[in-house]
Amino acid sequence: MALMFWYDFSSTYSYLAAMRIAEKAAAAGVEVTWHPFLLGPIFAEAGHAGSPNLVGEAKAGYMWMDIGRRAAHRGIPFVRPAVFPQKSVAAGRAALALEGEERAAFSRAVFGEIFGKGRDCADLAVLADAATAAGLDPERVVAGASDATAKAALFAAVDEAKTHGIFGAPSFVTHDGALFWGDDRLDHALHWERTGMLPEGG
Amino acid sequence: MALMFWYDFSSTYSYLAAMRIAEKAAAAGVEVTWHPFLLGPIFAEAGHAGSPNLVGEAKAGYMWMDIGRRAAHRGIPFVRPAVFPQKSVAAGRAALALEGEERAAFSRAVFGEIFGKGRDCADLAVLADAATAAGLDPERVVAGASDATAKAALFAAVDEAKTHGIFGAPSFVTHDGALFWGDDRLDHALHWERTGMLPEGG
Repeated sequence: MALMFWYDFSSTYSYLAAMRIAEKAAAAGVEVTWHPFLLGPIFAEAGHAGSPNLVGEAKAGYMWMDIGRRAAHRGIPFVRPAVFPQKSVAAGRAALALEGEERAAFSRAVFGEIFGKGRDCADLAVLADAATAAGLDPERVVAGASDATAKAALFAAVDEAKTHGIFGAPSFVTHDGALFWGDDRLDHALHWERTGMLPEGG
Repeated sequence: MALMFWYDFSSTYSYLAAMRIAEKAAAAGVEVTWHPFLLGPIFAEAGHAGSPNLVGEAKAGYMWMDIGRRAAHRGIPFVRPAVFPQKSVAAGRAALALEGEERAAFSRAVFGEIFGKGRDCADLAVLADAATAAGLDPERVVAGASDATAKAALFAAVDEAKTHGIFGAPSFVTHDGALFWGDDRLDHALHWERTGMLPEGG
């Protein structure tokens, strides 16, 4: 029994979730598995021209304001990346070439490079720095970005995400298949994972 | 000092917010003003072909599931309306022709007709029933739907919503201009209205 955490490295709200899910899940006594995937093909299939968060100036402006507001409140850095959305294929593969706590630590570090420092995760040097920050061997991690097995795993992750009904990120899927979309709903997902129901006020 | 609650009668998540905001605001000691507006022109200007919640089967499916799940949890009825999205112009005008607690009570009743019973708020008979349910004179309320002042007020409401940066509904605007989008963020908006900051865990 574990809560699945589905994220795309290019997703702003996935950053917020990635930086707090381990602590919140531990406090709730819930195990988490980390599932990088790609929103691009899912957005394209749904008929979005690009990120739905960027449709219209008002919505895009709100997103950046809201991310900054919440990051400041949570005491985590936020720098709006010059490149956005980013190509998250290499980062996704590199993360999938790792397992368990290594994948989680590397993923947090990649998010930190992107949204904590404003860097571009399509740059392999950024992935190497994230690996180092996570205490991993950068050469081994960067090799994962061009690994054939990881490449196939990323395609498979997109397909698996679709089977869960996932259309955005972050998404959380409980062991009994309940889907929650958005960093806002992390508390709901954790409570459901433990109890099979929404929390009070949910 | 009051928290502004911006809603479109055709908005599913506005239903969830409308049915709980009075109680939650009272508990927080916050005054609320009710602001019906129209998402249609705002979506069109942003480049949406229709409701962003309906882009792609997965997202639309999630929305209906999620609304039903939360409504059940909160003990409020939910019937998916056969007509969706709905034309909310008449309901918006009728609501704007009322003031204060009459507007709030009528608005809750309209939402109840739409999402609690599955009826179409473009039907004036539905607005009459909502007025009766809210303890108001149905003839007077329905007359508001074709009132010239209310018509102008609804246009003005859309313009005012834009000045607050509103791009979706429900939206909450605090007395110091902070914007929160979504029923999920009601607690944050109420806390900000009182304290000028996000709540713990926000």
